[in-house]
Amino acid sequence: MATTLHVCTTCRRAGVDPEGETRPGALLHAALANLPCPEGVTIQPVECLSACTQGCSVALSAPGKWSYVYGRMGPEDAATILQGAALYDASADGLVPWRTRPEIFRKQSLARIPPQVLPVQE
Amino acid sequence: MATTLHVCTTCRRAGVDPEGETRPGALLHAALANLPCPEGVTIQPVECLSACTQGCSVALSAPGKWSYVYGRMGPEDAATILQGAALYDASADGLVPWRTRPEIFRKQSLARIPPQVLPVQE
Repeated sequence: MATTLHVCTTCRRAGVDPEGETRPGALLHAALANLPCPEGVTIQPVECLSACTQGCSVALSAPGKWSYVYGRMGPEDAATILQGAALYDASADGLVPWRTRPEIFRKQSLARIPPQVLPVQE
Repeated sequence: MATTLHVCTTCRRAGVDPEGETRPGALLHAALANLPCPEGVTIQPVECLSACTQGCSVALSAPGKWSYVYGRMGPEDAATILQGAALYDASADGLVPWRTRPEIFRKQSLARIPPQVLPVQE
């Protein structure tokens, strides 16, 4: 499959990121990159997922699947995020059964977007 | 082009939607459907964009473009949403210049997701 896990590297966390230090989003990206990446998943840093009040934020997307954006993440969530990404990658449509989703995905979803429907060529 | 404007029809608005009445999301969808739809844009109702605390919510997406989710919308915003959808459709990558975006899109973005990169076939 071809799942992309986008990680915002410019994200701050409310009240815990003094100016001038490494952004919490960059720390989250580093934590993710330091773990074994599930097969089928590519980690991609990105500058801003427009979820600035809900940092740190990550997004899961794949061709033909629902896309999801999650917020209020931190480096301590890296392993769980990758578990969730693997479940997403294994799903047919991006809809992982509720009970099997990591709790941080159940409780910290910021938004989801339906799969893109390509126009029919006639 | 092939822009889809997804409209959550199950969205509530905090404090203004008594149980049993038509959902504000459905009212927003009706307001949008009653206006002339910009060329290239398709309005698509959807049950839940997982932005339940930020209703009403809508999403803009198109193949190869950044996707956006907006929240805290209402039927009174329908015409502005369609203006924003037309600008999105006219853009090459979904990134409408900041100054030309409707104010509700500048201030009420919940999240955005980068374009999906299709795997290279070799």
